[in-house]
Amino acid sequence: MMVGDEIKTIQTIAILGGTGKEGKGLAFRWARAGYRIIIGSRSLEKASAAVVEVKGYFDKAVQVEAMLNQAAAAAGDVIILTVPFSAHREMLESVKSELQGKILVDVTVPLVPPRVTRVQMPPAGSAAQEAQQILGEGVLVVSAFQNISYENLLTQEDIDCDILVCGSGKAAREIVLTLIKAAGLIGWDAGPLENSVVIEGLTSILIGINKQYGVKSSGIKITGVGGAEKK
Amino acid sequence: MMVGDEIKTIQTIAILGGTGKEGKGLAFRWARAGYRIIIGSRSLEKASAAVVEVKGYFDKAVQVEAMLNQAAAAAGDVIILTVPFSAHREMLESVKSELQGKILVDVTVPLVPPRVTRVQMPPAGSAAQEAQQILGEGVLVVSAFQNISYENLLTQEDIDCDILVCGSGKAAREIVLTLIKAAGLIGWDAGPLENSVVIEGLTSILIGINKQYGVKSSGIKITGVGGAEKK
Repeated sequence: MMVGDEIKTIQTIAILGGTGKEGKGLAFRWARAGYRIIIGSRSLEKASAAVVEVKGYFDKAVQVEAMLNQAAAAAGDVIILTVPFSAHREMLESVKSELQGKILVDVTVPLVPPRVTRVQMPPAGSAAQEAQQILGEGVLVVSAFQNISYENLLTQEDIDCDILVCGSGKAAREIVLTLIKAAGLIGWDAGPLENSVVIEGLTSILIGINKQYGVKSSGIKITGVGGAEKK
Repeated sequence: MMVGDEIKTIQTIAILGGTGKEGKGLAFRWARAGYRIIIGSRSLEKASAAVVEVKGYFDKAVQVEAMLNQAAAAAGDVIILTVPFSAHREMLESVKSELQGKILVDVTVPLVPPRVTRVQMPPAGSAAQEAQQILGEGVLVVSAFQNISYENLLTQEDIDCDILVCGSGKAAREIVLTLIKAAGLIGWDAGPLENSVVIEGLTSILIGINKQYGVKSSGIKITGVGGAEKK
């Protein structure tokens, strides 16, 4: 796969299951950065409503469009998946052919209600590894964005939570790190896809901290790196 | 187990495999806080040398003693385990009877050289869960301290890395959080023992960040909690 070529040509970001707060928050950030955004949904009506909402945050024209998930997957240069874990496998199987040769950024956290503060991974090891198994080696699966509070994305404010990025190949991780920077966020290369268990599982720990310490959006920052993230 | 009683009576902290930088760093911090510390080793000579080194950081009298690991395990109210993963199982089996009814704080990270930046957990799910399997239900296993840079413990400086604590029972976690505070560190209750995969695995991610970004001691801080940790 010509990943190097893609770096220069990413223009369209498709967000599957993008009508939730995660999808709208990311759509807002990347539309602000000038990307063409496609919000995908099972319902074109819901996708259109999300588009109207995201556009409503802007005074200027931005490129945000609504499509059904499969069409969105076909249209995107990079595909973001923001669905509940219960819809993870079915969604991926339905867009498997459209995703071949592309980067799939999996935002899914495999929470198992009601014990959402307990780390419980699927047999593949993590949701992102499950995605890789379903999609095959022709798709570059990257894991990111699980730990941020999405409400905060829909503001112009800085987000007090870094983003750990792991996935299939350094080139794919670099592309996603570029998108993270474009969204006004700080990201870190967290290594191979096997490391996604840490990133996904951290969400359960943060939910537990929120509950125990009476806060709404605990997060993490990487320390001891000086200005390294600005390189 | 009368965990409540223990909270009031923890006086002696035994650090098994305590002659490395992790053990000496923790010994220094807790000796400074007034606890009686026992540094355990397979070699009484090495343990004694570590005691001399730790005492050398103080101008005042502190309680730091050397013992063989088994004697240390018997003497401690709380037991800290700081050994390489390759020695983890053998060490735990050798002190299993001494640990019954106590808290074992497992600091072990199951790194698999040479791919130490790749999260690779043992069949039990994590080193701490393996410890629980080996020791049985009569020992309260708590996982903590894997992510800090130990060189920094041997100074009076603040450590720019929070400590996530997970383990068997909230009462045991609370005791360890008290010890963390006594060591001048900030700790967070990270839930049940199953969550240790995140805490242990985070070490691989931080090693990877150190390598990629050319720093020596990256760490993490929990954000979005305001002054919650001071409660």
